This record gives sequence, structure tokens and C-alpha cells, in this order.
Amino acid sequence: MPYVNIKVTREGVTPGQKAELIAGVSDLLQRVLNKDPSLTHVVIDEVNLENWGVGGLPVPQYRQRRTT
Amino acid sequence: MPYVNIKVTREGVTPGQKAELIAGVSDLLQRVLNKDPSLTHVVIDEVNLENWGVGGLPVPQYRQRRTT
Amino acid sequence: MPYVNIKVTREGVTPGQKAELIAGVSDLLQRVLNKDPSLTHVVIDEVNLENWGVGGLPVPQYRQRRTT
Amino acid sequence: MPYVNIKVTREGVTPGQKAELIAGVSDLLQRVLNKDPSLTHVVIDEVNLENWGVGGLPVPQYRQRRTT
Amino acid sequence: MPYVNIKVTREGVTPGQKAELIAGVSDLLQRVLNKDPSLTHVVIDEVNLENWGVGGLPVPQYRQRRTT
Amino acid sequence: MPYVNIKVTREGVTPGQKAELIAGVSDLLQRVLNKDPSLTHVVIDEVNLENWGVGGLPVPQYRQRRTT
Repeated sequence: MPYVNIKVTREGVTPGQKAELIAGVSDLLQRVLNKDPSLTHVVIDEVNLENWGVGGLPVPQYRQRRTT
Repeated sequence: MPYVNIKVTREGVTPGQKAELIAGVSDLLQRVLNKDPSLTHVVIDEVNLENWGVGGLPVPQYRQRRTT
Repeated sequence: MPYVNIKVTREGVTPGQKAELIAGVSDLLQRVLNKDPSLTHVVIDEVNLENWGVGGLPVPQYRQRRTT
Repeated sequence: MPYVNIKVTREGVTPGQKAELIAGVSDLLQRVLNKDPSLTHVVIDEVNLENWGVGGLPVPQYRQRRTT
Repeated sequence: MPYVNIKVTREGVTPGQKAELIAGVSDLLQRVLNKDPSLTHVVIDEVNLENWGVGGLPVPQYRQRRTT
Repeated sequence: MPYVNIKVTREGVTPGQKAELIAGVSDLLQRVLNKDPSLTHVVIDEVNLENWGVGGLPVPQYRQRRTT
């Protein structure tokens, strides 16, 4: 029954990494809550950097400020 | 007031099908809960196959395993 | 594969109405997109009136303004 | 700690407007709830017009009906 | 058309503060993107502290670690 | 930057299990995508059984049908 939504910035996540995230989350829910993987849905959303804000700034500006 | 989010895999859903889903959900909420369609918002998200996991696998591998 | 999230205000939706919404959405996705109901998940969120805003107002004040 | 998701129709929102929304929401949460902007995440989702429904219609048809 | 979901920890947000958040977000979207407040929906979700994690810890433990 | 939302049915998930899910998801995102746990937010939503549907039925009826 679990539904898991993973939102990450769109920065070249490979199909292999997506498969690892899906397997990892399903295993975790099976191990911790004994959830049936066949009923566990995982959706990965990739968000453009300018569409994600933290510290009051879009990510590109936020990262620039952290490195200066 | 209702807000309905429909997430489906990105597999060529046509504008006509999207209109059917929007009309169908609005009618359902009006019929069952007497909700005003003009205040009912429906958002359809289309998700790439490799970004959706079930059974611990991305959909393409999941479907392949179900057919072998 | 579809995941549908229905958000409505918390105003006494009965178990029977929830079952109708779940069945109605599953049938709609099967009819329009040929989606397998056993892979269609529907989650209904009920939101307190003061936690839902429209027209810049919480729902109670919004409704009051519409009736005066 | 806040997480804010803003869904708007995909109609040419500029990077500058996105930055304004991110800053505005972070300031609002700091002012009203004293939330630390460095722990406030804002994600803007842009939705294709045909994927958003209101009044039982996709937005293009809804707008057309409102102007005729 | 905008739909905004604000998730905050459940820590006694008052009706007045919720009204301020709803008004503030609606004004922001009207000012920046000229969105009609009557079509702007805002939903505030309040999440129990133990249900929110950051830094790999539930919020209570995360805060405790930050103060020691 | 990641934001992860885990929706599960409300069936007595303990604080310890929630902490395990939060730690597990944060570790997974750090291992697979090298994401900073201090910027990784995890929110667990617990949904009443009658509010979750699969196979066109609310979970209680779905489970009953699977056992008969």
C-alpha cells in the first residue's frame, strides 16, 4: 500500500540510480513495516534547479552564495 | 473546493482522454459529494516509465518480469 | 499504475461516499486509459476548513462572504 | 522545516518570477511562523494547460467558455 | 488556477496565522503572476514532529542534536 | 535538496519505525545520489484505511476480498 514520492533536482539522475532508489525504498518499507513490494509504488519527480528554492533563493543562487 | 491529482505513466495520454478524466472526476465529486465543478481543480501528472517503481522495479523491468 | 490523490474539506464524508469515490475513480481510469484497478491507488485526504484557502480567505470566511 | 509546493499552469513563468515566488513564500513563513529560510524548501511545478482541469474542463476550453 | 500546498510541523499554528498564510500566498501569486485569487487554492498540512525528518533524524532528535 | 513523502496506511507505525524510515531514506539518497542529509526532508503521512483505495475498493474491503 505505500506510496512514496521522491522529489530531487534535475541533475542527470541515471536510469540505474532511479532503479537503485526504487529498490532501496521498497526494501526499506518491507524491512521496517513488512510492506509488500508489489503494492509499494515509488514515483521520482525531477525538478529544474530554478524551480526549487531553499534559503529564500533558487538553488543555483543558493549554491553560489554557499561557495562565496 | 476539491483538488484532485492524477499521476499516470507517460504513455501517450491524448488531450481527449485528459478531458474525459477531468470531466469524469468533476462529475463524480458533484454526484457523490455535491461539489461545485467550478471550484474543483484536477491536475494530471505524466511520469516517465523509468521514474515509476512498483514491486521494487522501474515499470519497464516490472512489466518485463510479469510477461516472462 | 495510476495514483490518485483526492483532497476535500473535512465535512463528514462517510465511509460509503469514500468507497464510491474510490470505485468511481478506478472505473474511470479503467474505462478511459484501460488501467488495471489492482494497480490503481486512490488516497483521500480530508482537510480542516481553516486549513483550506480560496479567494485569499480560509473557507469559512470565504463562504460567509459569498452568502452576504 | 516548511515545504511549499506551488503548482501553476505552464505559461512562461520567468526565472525572475520564480525567484520572487521563492523569496516571497520564504519571507511569509519567516514573518508569520518565524520559520528559518534555510530550512524552508519551495518547489514550483509547471503544468501543461491541457493537464489542468477546472469546471469540468481542461483550462483552454474553460477559458474559452468564460470569454464567450 | 494556482494550487499551493504548505506543509509545516504541527506546532500550534493558530487560525489567524493560517489566514495570514492564505492571504499572503494569494497576494504573492496575484502580484507576481497576476493570478486570480478566486481561482487560487491553498492547503495547509500540519505534520506531527515525529513524522518529519531532516538530517536523517525525526525533528525532535534533530533539534536536540542542534542544541547540544 | 531531496524531499521525500512516504504515505502509508494508519496502522500503528511506531516512533522507532518512523525514525528508521527517515534514516533509511536519507542514507539511501546520500549513497545513491550523494545528497546532503541536512538538506534532505522526509515527511511521513499516515492515511486512515477507509481513505485508501486499491482494486476499486477501500483497503478493509480489498483485504477481506483477498482472504476469502
